Amino acid sequence: MKKSRSEFQMWDFDLICIGVGSGGLACAKEAVSLGAKVACLDFVRPTPIGTRWGIGGTCVNVGCIPKKHMHQAALLGNAIEDATHFGWNVPKGSAINWKKLVTEIQNNIRSTNWVVKVELRTRNMTYFNGIGSFIDQHTIRVKMANGSEQQITGKYILIAIGNRPVYPKIPGALEYGITSDDLFSLPKPPGKTLCVGAGYVSMESAGFLNELGYNVTVMARAEILSTFDQEMVNILKEYMASRGVTFLQYRLPKSVELTENKQLLVKFRNIKNENIEEHGIFDTVIWAMGRRPLLDDINFSAVNLTIDDYEIVVNNFEQTSVPNIFAVGDVVKGRPKLTPVAIKAGISVARRLFGGADDCVNYNNIPTTLFTPLEYSFVGMTEEEALRRFDENDIDVHHGYYNPIEFIVSQRSTAYCYIKVITRRDEACRIIGIHFIGPNAGEILQGFAAAINCGLTVDALFSTVGVHLTNAAELTKVFITKRSGLDPSKPLYVPT
Amino acid sequence: MKKSRSEFQMWDFDLICIGVGSGGLACAKEAVSLGAKVACLDFVRPTPIGTRWGIGGTCVNVGCIPKKHMHQAALLGNAIEDATHFGWNVPKGSAINWKKLVTEIQNNIRSTNWVVKVELRTRNMTYFNGIGSFIDQHTIRVKMANGSEQQITGKYILIAIGNRPVYPKIPGALEYGITSDDLFSLPKPPGKTLCVGAGYVSMESAGFLNELGYNVTVMARAEILSTFDQEMVNILKEYMASRGVTFLQYRLPKSVELTENKQLLVKFRNIKNENIEEHGIFDTVIWAMGRRPLLDDINFSAVNLTIDDYEIVVNNFEQTSVPNIFAVGDVVKGRPKLTPVAIKAGISVARRLFGGADDCVNYNNIPTTLFTPLEYSFVGMTEEEALRRFDENDIDVHHGYYNPIEFIVSQRSTAYCYIKVITRRDEACRIIGIHFIGPNAGEILQGFAAAINCGLTVDALFSTVGVHLTNAAELTKVFITKRSGLDPSKPLYVPT
Repeated sequence: MKKSRSEFQMWDFDLICIGVGSGGLACAKEAVSLGAKVACLDFVRPTPIGTRWGIGGTCVNVGCIPKKHMHQAALLGNAIEDATHFGWNVPKGSAINWKKLVTEIQNNIRSTNWVVKVELRTRNMTYFNGIGSFIDQHTIRVKMANGSEQQITGKYILIAIGNRPVYPKIPGALEYGITSDDLFSLPKPPGKTLCVGAGYVSMESAGFLNELGYNVTVMARAEILSTFDQEMVNILKEYMASRGVTFLQYRLPKSVELTENKQLLVKFRNIKNENIEEHGIFDTVIWAMGRRPLLDDINFSAVNLTIDDYEIVVNNFEQTSVPNIFAVGDVVKGRPKLTPVAIKAGISVARRLFGGADDCVNYNNIPTTLFTPLEYSFVGMTEEEALRRFDENDIDVHHGYYNPIEFIVSQRSTAYCYIKVITRRDEACRIIGIHFIGPNAGEILQGFAAAINCGLTVDALFSTVGVHLTNAAELTKVFITKRSGLDPSKPLYVPT
Repeated sequence: MKKSRSEFQMWDFDLICIGVGSGGLACAKEAVSLGAKVACLDFVRPTPIGTRWGIGGTCVNVGCIPKKHMHQAALLGNAIEDATHFGWNVPKGSAINWKKLVTEIQNNIRSTNWVVKVELRTRNMTYFNGIGSFIDQHTIRVKMANGSEQQITGKYILIAIGNRPVYPKIPGALEYGITSDDLFSLPKPPGKTLCVGAGYVSMESAGFLNELGYNVTVMARAEILSTFDQEMVNILKEYMASRGVTFLQYRLPKSVELTENKQLLVKFRNIKNENIEEHGIFDTVIWAMGRRPLLDDINFSAVNLTIDDYEIVVNNFEQTSVPNIFAVGDVVKGRPKLTPVAIKAGISVARRLFGGADDCVNYNNIPTTLFTPLEYSFVGMTEEEALRRFDENDIDVHHGYYNPIEFIVSQRSTAYCYIKVITRRDEACRIIGIHFIGPNAGEILQGFAAAINCGLTVDALFSTVGVHLTNAAELTKVFITKRSGLDPSKPLYVPT
């Protein structure tokens, strides 16, 4: 199904990828492997405090990867606490060396940057370290990092520029605040930290910083993780609070000032209490109030791209309103903003353009995980969504608390280890949502996401034999329904 | 569907459970909840060195539960090593306090014993702390631990006596050797340990003792875990060897003697090398050469029970050759010897006898895990079994090595992290076996076992979106087949 090179020869390139993060790179690599001539453009605007990074996009440099390392560092801190209970002679109150942690993480990132560069070179992609902006729908102006400029043409253009953290428009925000773009390379320990935002970046940062030993406050304008299952989110919040995180909800930051002893005075309004002004002193303020693409950089107005609320609108084939321009990854409207989704979408675009494929990505039942650091993972619908889409009598919510065996000797609280399985209430009893809080929730949910893809029913779940003493096995025993009114903290032995 | 009590009134009990381990207890509880009058008999013969334990059976007292605690202790030892790489200031070379570890584990076991006792009482089961032996198919002689004796009758009898470790018939075996029945309450550190046996008890004990800092040797007469996938087992062995475990295969122990300085001189024959005699000095010798039920205790010859190689033969309904006598758990011939299997079988018996059910347990696709302590978990067929049952051209073996992100900063070897997915090679490409070595393999496989129960195919697996940076997500990317000859250590981006 490969198209011959000559079909494309009126353009410099068959495909120009603007942005070489997870989605752009996946598309570029797949396109090259299908015989296309590909250009890759990548440029990182430094943050207000000057943080820069290398090739590979958000995930590699300032997202998933450094986050997962921080998460692991937090879990290892927990493990040290636990180890003393098991008889390991480690001193109580171990402290983290932030500088060493950041150095290790940055070393890992740099080696990944290098791997990406080698991949671009060995696969004969043409790499431009520059910003690409539209002149017309086939012509891109490349402003190189070294100041030079050139134009290139492509039959197809892929926009995969990702997005960047939003700063509040308040005094001191840019001067004194940082974002997740700065956090993972922060040269000095964050100290007492304020995470402003109600999304997963705020919650995950708060989670790992707290377990690394820093005093952490989460400030949010409204509900935390408002699109997530609120019962699960409330349990997560209770867990984080029990570990020391302070939650300040219904607050709007007003200003950040530097105090005499180099701390940050943050003033904020309490919007639930007559807008009275409150304040707090912090060492670090992290803005995690959402992310937006730098659309102006690509001069989107030169082509007729449909944009909605700063995001690019595409159809099922990742095609924008301009037929030869495609978009994947976080820049796209209405898609889960997850690396594996961007990768799947990128590969899919390349295969349709250069491999003769015609299928599109299935965006249903995509599992996701919050590393807070007790993990919350889910796939499928929230309870709220199920109740919006079905009558209350047409769904059942199975639920239960469970006791991870690894928490027994270590005397860790099991109060937050909770499972919820949402099912249709008909002949088949298909499962439409699984929610799990506990150790390794992300690892655990993956297989159940595959099972849901295969039509998992309540019968199939309960007839699956458990892997004994794993937490995953608890999912095969969530016999109690909310409808029954039975106590979900007392496991039933027997399916109803 | 409940039967009325009067139907059974000619017997003292509707059901007598001989043995109150996982299987017996599950059956008893379910039977009581369905209205049956139940007697539970439980007695533990002390080990040769005098170890005793309480109610609840092997899993609770000398099996899965203490094993999982030891496994967790081993993982926490690894975590302390890892933590230093992440910047936690813990001293290198932390040591385990064996006495504290054993005390914590025993405390947990005792609290579980207590829970079991309370359950028996609150559910109005009649408990006998005694050995039950058959007088006839409805009459049981109970020799109480206090020396008294009585007879009770039951309409149905359940044999759920589990099994106990086998000792070799060589000089010194009973005097100087121990088994897993003694290990979890061993009052002094095991020191240099010889694990004799090729099964999972030997391998798991070797694994955790080694990571707890003891010098460990595994001795086996033949292949290790010979019914498991041998490619996976070889990788496990290489991993354990890399961590310091010595493997002495094709050796038969000949004698154990006490040396002058209270160590154990073990003499053994090298059966691959002209039976020459070799020897080693150890502090502890663990016999893990198989397990057998104490059938003589129940006087099985008084009834016409069919026994095969020390195991009780049952039909699909767990019914023995004597129609009113049933058996579940490790005492049964040809069933996976796993706690969740015993529980499912026990519940199933009670429901058929007292709840009007007529379905039987599905023993296919039962996932299992080796905690060595890098975990190996699998569900479905081994590669050997697949090749026995299908033509080589009718199956595909997808495989790949992967790099757990938690091993990067900690510089732990990823050489043993290997996945194998065995599929039919037809229209549907159903998956018939999944094998996974890596951190949390047991947690990871559970959901995939559910997926296989739902007919998981290669397409469904590869179209499942990964939970980013989990090891479980690697299963959605095992694109390389052995048939292709491609290098499984170099991940493909793209499904074939």
